[in-house]
Amino acid sequence: MSVVDFARFVDELAALSGQAILPFFRAAFITEDKSTGQAPFDPVTEADRAGEAAMRQLIRRTFPSHGILGEEFGSEHEDAEYVWVLDPIDGTRGFIAGLPLWGTLIGLTRDGVPCYGLMHQPFLGERFSGDGRTAQYRGPHGTRRLLTRRRSALSEAIVATTDPRLFGEGREREAYGRIEAATRLTRFGTDCYAYCMLAAGQIDLVIEAGLKPYDIVALIPVIEGAGGVVTTWDGGSAANGGTIVAAGDRRLHEAALALLNA
Amino acid sequence: MSVVDFARFVDELAALSGQAILPFFRAAFITEDKSTGQAPFDPVTEADRAGEAAMRQLIRRTFPSHGILGEEFGSEHEDAEYVWVLDPIDGTRGFIAGLPLWGTLIGLTRDGVPCYGLMHQPFLGERFSGDGRTAQYRGPHGTRRLLTRRRSALSEAIVATTDPRLFGEGREREAYGRIEAATRLTRFGTDCYAYCMLAAGQIDLVIEAGLKPYDIVALIPVIEGAGGVVTTWDGGSAANGGTIVAAGDRRLHEAALALLNA
Repeated sequence: MSVVDFARFVDELAALSGQAILPFFRAAFITEDKSTGQAPFDPVTEADRAGEAAMRQLIRRTFPSHGILGEEFGSEHEDAEYVWVLDPIDGTRGFIAGLPLWGTLIGLTRDGVPCYGLMHQPFLGERFSGDGRTAQYRGPHGTRRLLTRRRSALSEAIVATTDPRLFGEGREREAYGRIEAATRLTRFGTDCYAYCMLAAGQIDLVIEAGLKPYDIVALIPVIEGAGGVVTTWDGGSAANGGTIVAAGDRRLHEAALALLNA
Repeated sequence: MSVVDFARFVDELAALSGQAILPFFRAAFITEDKSTGQAPFDPVTEADRAGEAAMRQLIRRTFPSHGILGEEFGSEHEDAEYVWVLDPIDGTRGFIAGLPLWGTLIGLTRDGVPCYGLMHQPFLGERFSGDGRTAQYRGPHGTRRLLTRRRSALSEAIVATTDPRLFGEGREREAYGRIEAATRLTRFGTDCYAYCMLAAGQIDLVIEAGLKPYDIVALIPVIEGAGGVVTTWDGGSAANGGTIVAAGDRRLHEAALALLNA
């Protein structure tokens, strides 16, 4: 089976999970009775579970020999040739706050190596996908190839990170602080959307820590397909999560690694 | 002239500024040649100026006796009965990074008191408007009344702030830290969108500092129209900017004020 065929299947998974998740997004917005101030249920957990259950069911039915690693329901057949890596809602804080920057991450690994990935933002109708060699954006304003920006100077770089509290108070915080001080501007609150904007040439550098595999596997083929580089802070494979540094430009990635490990 | 008539005029201003600004949004995304890594121009400054110039021209032509206070081109007739308060792009960092959470803010004051306001997100096609008594959302997924959430407990509150670095390193940072420690979760990177999600009942508390009048005037009638409260940290009028605390619930606002001034 070629990656092209998987791409069509991943679009089906995205449509299905989007349908399962969207009714829970902005639930407070939709609810007319806010008098009690108590949420009747936990919309983000419900949505997470509904999205992942829908995807797992279709994967099991279509590819019973494949493995699955998901945020909500753990792993099965983890040693299979093909393993699906799923995060139904990456960016749960944004989801809870009604901000449309969360995304559904659908990644596929072959023998442990990410070979296809998609980020789907169903509220905005945006899809960012890639296979490591090329990457594509599809949205309400059109379809285009994703290409990172070739900006090599740290002093010019636009940096994103979800939350500086990710880095704790120790060495990771200091390392991140050196990046912040050396670059042009930092934007917080970005989650998976930051990596997609890096693939689109809008953001130059994304620095994070404490990521799980399902937070990053789907994004690796998008970033690399757009011409970017993504590794851990020690230059190893990003596929297992941990500390992550993604750059649109190879020289910028090297400069960021050097500064993180200074 | 009634506020209803102004509402229609404000929609015209929003359409006009949106047309002026949108071609500059995600300019890096659209540009195919990213080989030099050098932006040929500063898209956010160009967009800011184009948006504000378009709005000023229509205001001057339609209401020559009105005053205007804008982020880009300063003030004129500031002592007029009606003064328009304009921020073509609130959230320039988000704009630069390609994130669709910036907004165009169009406020109107009468004798110094905010009487109508609109936040327009032209990329998403969303409008949040209010006149202090009622507030409305219009977007691609429908039109609905905006109502804040009546959640009074700090420990349950969902908090937003654009960037903790806004508070510096002194007393303001400590005061904000007390809020962060006492509440359920904090989301960064929100700009004007946070106040709109507060009006929509998704966010309970927005805490900021160092705001200019044009960052907040347009949002006051939206927040108040949805049932929320917005003041400075000392409980005074938010219309002059400065330190801002907005809450969906009056008791929560009081609790936040007490903690900020503890």
